[in-house]
Amino acid sequence: VFKNETEFVRWLSGVLPMPTGRVRLGIGDDAALVRVGHGRELILTTDLSIEGVHFLRGLHPPDSVGHRALARSLSDIAAMGGVPRFALVSLVISRPTTRSWAERFYAGLRALAARFGVAVIGGDTALVRGATMVDVMVAGEVPQGRALRRSGARPGEQIFVSGRLGVSELGLRLLRRRGRRLHGAGADAVQAHLYPEPKCALGRFLSQERLASAVIDVSDGLSTDLGHLCEASGVGARIWTNLVPVPDVPLEAEVHEVDSLELALHGGEDYQLLFTVPSRNVSRIPRRFRGVPLQRIGEVQRSGELLLVRPNGEREPLRPGGYDHFRKAIR
Amino acid sequence: VFKNETEFVRWLSGVLPMPTGRVRLGIGDDAALVRVGHGRELILTTDLSIEGVHFLRGLHPPDSVGHRALARSLSDIAAMGGVPRFALVSLVISRPTTRSWAERFYAGLRALAARFGVAVIGGDTALVRGATMVDVMVAGEVPQGRALRRSGARPGEQIFVSGRLGVSELGLRLLRRRGRRLHGAGADAVQAHLYPEPKCALGRFLSQERLASAVIDVSDGLSTDLGHLCEASGVGARIWTNLVPVPDVPLEAEVHEVDSLELALHGGEDYQLLFTVPSRNVSRIPRRFRGVPLQRIGEVQRSGELLLVRPNGEREPLRPGGYDHFRKAIR
Repeated sequence: VFKNETEFVRWLSGVLPMPTGRVRLGIGDDAALVRVGHGRELILTTDLSIEGVHFLRGLHPPDSVGHRALARSLSDIAAMGGVPRFALVSLVISRPTTRSWAERFYAGLRALAARFGVAVIGGDTALVRGATMVDVMVAGEVPQGRALRRSGARPGEQIFVSGRLGVSELGLRLLRRRGRRLHGAGADAVQAHLYPEPKCALGRFLSQERLASAVIDVSDGLSTDLGHLCEASGVGARIWTNLVPVPDVPLEAEVHEVDSLELALHGGEDYQLLFTVPSRNVSRIPRRFRGVPLQRIGEVQRSGELLLVRPNGEREPLRPGGYDHFRKAIR
Repeated sequence: VFKNETEFVRWLSGVLPMPTGRVRLGIGDDAALVRVGHGRELILTTDLSIEGVHFLRGLHPPDSVGHRALARSLSDIAAMGGVPRFALVSLVISRPTTRSWAERFYAGLRALAARFGVAVIGGDTALVRGATMVDVMVAGEVPQGRALRRSGARPGEQIFVSGRLGVSELGLRLLRRRGRRLHGAGADAVQAHLYPEPKCALGRFLSQERLASAVIDVSDGLSTDLGHLCEASGVGARIWTNLVPVPDVPLEAEVHEVDSLELALHGGEDYQLLFTVPSRNVSRIPRRFRGVPLQRIGEVQRSGELLLVRPNGEREPLRPGGYDHFRKAIR
């Protein structure tokens, strides 16, 4: 049996043959990349959403389950700088599922697909005794050679992140305790958790303007995904805690129980983009892109470790504490 | 809740928007079809394989589970006349699964992929308490306008099928009763069940030579898949029972329990191609293609019903009796 997902993916990359010829990028990045025709590459990605692991029936309304299942894959396309085009949806529904649940699931998925110009063109279905699960494959496009990868970060480059981190995790905690009867920052956090917005336009902007050297979407938490990016690039990173964009903690939260930096470092499912920028491009990064702040949070370093630097200069290792669905399921 | 898969797919086609623009074909055929670049179209398909529904842990060796999971999707590409290129594999494994099971699963999948020139370029994974399941997405290519569809059959055309039907179902029954200690026809049937061979070369031949007006792969059984083809084409069909290529019933089978015509009409998972041929092309259909017999079994008719014609001229309706995973799971 496998300890966690990282170990599994590493094992899998060894077991499956290396990409060659038209396959530009195989297992291990946000999505796979293949050459099709002239001047364009196809991005293929697929993401599972499983009841009890990625969503809870009592907590997530069906339209949110549909929205989030598609958002996971759209975010992978965003992290490659591509334009999502087509989706295949495989839906395994547990027997007690009602037609109304399925209708609302597809309504949520379809609304997001329509907004991103994605055509849902097929899939597969089955009924089972066990948990409901969804596998959403998305095909996107990117001009040849313009796909953004995890592997291009170089020492001395600046690390940026879009939006605020930990908002989705905060929303999940509020939702569990208070349901949806919230206002202000609390309601915003719940909304961010239930209906995350993939950053496709930002990914495209970074690709078209050739601003970023490496990109990953923050799906498992900053500490985990920064680790993935650094590992793929063969570098390390230093993050300044006072620069990390933490969530607004709403009045409704029991403040003593919420460490907003902890949320921002380890909370998953924000689907923001984390990217590295060579020094010469830093001045060309806008403060906001379509209303979403772009914040410098640290620096790429040669040494392979991930360090957290406190305002008083204290340093400590940043250990992956994000969401590993494998580990969660094993627990 | 939904009665069966056909009803679900019909409901789904209504719920999701119609394909437009670059989407040439959406839900309801063997696979989806999209235009990419000049002169080529992309075929996208995905198929679920679920423990307890599509395979049984005690019965199917892990390399067979991997082989069959990929074969399902390759067969969809075959039925469109395409060349399979890339695969994404989503694997949801139940907790007790061992590393050795996963290794042998991928070995089976990889061996088939290599033989068909398919690159496995990504996927997703999760560990769950429930059943193991696999979702295999395959992307293939076809020259523009050459994809074979289900919807082109016209009254008066001849109906052909490749290979023998019901062999996989016979193999499953033998496997259940006798295990793998079989020889001759019995061993062949078990082999056909565990390691089915998608008919990609035949599909390509039919497309390149423009011989067939409609094609479907026989995954759910002749009676079910002929029904799908006829429904998509708005026609009916007459099948001559004495022309249907039934399996060789081996010595090991208890002959009184095996009705070979019944097996051939309703047994699933043979992954042969069922296709209709306009009269002017019939003489150009070879008796065998790469060793696989191509057999004429009936005729397309205007009236929407499916009829079975016995050698004595008696007619009876051919009702779908094949494998509907939805119905099976509900039972």
